[in-house]
Amino acid sequence: MRDGDDDPLGERALGSEQVFDGVLLKVWRDRVKLPGGGESVREYVRHPGAVVVVARLQDGTLLLERQFRYPLGRAFLEFPAGKIDPGEDVLDCAKRELREETGYEASAWRYVGVMHPCIGYSDERIEIFVADELSHVGHAWDEGEFLEVLNWPVQAVEAAIHAGRITDAKTITAFYRALPFIG
Amino acid sequence: MRDGDDDPLGERALGSEQVFDGVLLKVWRDRVKLPGGGESVREYVRHPGAVVVVARLQDGTLLLERQFRYPLGRAFLEFPAGKIDPGEDVLDCAKRELREETGYEASAWRYVGVMHPCIGYSDERIEIFVADELSHVGHAWDEGEFLEVLNWPVQAVEAAIHAGRITDAKTITAFYRALPFIG
Repeated sequence: MRDGDDDPLGERALGSEQVFDGVLLKVWRDRVKLPGGGESVREYVRHPGAVVVVARLQDGTLLLERQFRYPLGRAFLEFPAGKIDPGEDVLDCAKRELREETGYEASAWRYVGVMHPCIGYSDERIEIFVADELSHVGHAWDEGEFLEVLNWPVQAVEAAIHAGRITDAKTITAFYRALPFIG
Repeated sequence: MRDGDDDPLGERALGSEQVFDGVLLKVWRDRVKLPGGGESVREYVRHPGAVVVVARLQDGTLLLERQFRYPLGRAFLEFPAGKIDPGEDVLDCAKRELREETGYEASAWRYVGVMHPCIGYSDERIEIFVADELSHVGHAWDEGEFLEVLNWPVQAVEAAIHAGRITDAKTITAFYRALPFIG
């Protein structure tokens, strides 16, 4: 249950039940008391959190992936990212996802901040990192994971955002949060 | 079902079933054939799509809302946004959401592009608009909708993004997609 008692806009949980327990998705439905005194229902995904990595090669290009995203039925250009394992440190997760998905290790890491991709119906947070001083050690894709790794100049990434070729909000958000450190 | 037959990364649907039919959330589980020939399961939210509006007052400030978001148990600063009604034109939706939530009508509208907030487990798309030449006509909040309307200079919005006070990815993405038209 999520309580917002200290905020005049806050909603107070009256009850909470899990309504779907999937392999990936965990969905909950809560009854809530509204600020005006009425009651309503809130349905939402509980998510373990994730990381996204803006990784810069020695030549200044940024690592991108092209990955098929089933809910939308097509591949997207996006920065390396992935879910946090239970108990895993967020920086360890960022290092793991970068290595597994792109085959690179980085010796310089900077934590940039957090974003929330889907505040209407998910508690997911995504922690943003910038990775520098990369060396290639070979990827380790999960079974059933298929992706292409690309590297693009910073200006090409920004141009693709404004041309609508990159539409993934976590990638666009991470790019602009990282830009002061990579520009 | 979402087919990606024409892409070497594509996954092909083998079967599809709705596993949760909530008031807001509709969750589906599909069996898919992977590019490598194996099978897997994909669980995802089907969403009607949404709009977000970057609305600029005569003095150049941007309209923001502070709205409680139950999944995360706190209020967020975000641009006016909302779901598309069945059969509704996206521009009509943008006009409706701006008027209902902030009380403003705009006589100049620009379509900027689309973002995808949650490609891992939702088919949601958010259409981005810039609204200019605003006039105040009074809001019309839905029953159970509670929010505060603010107006901030463009520079204050960008500073809040980089300070981590604005973390909503749709707001950050919409801000930077709109910036060439409002800067």
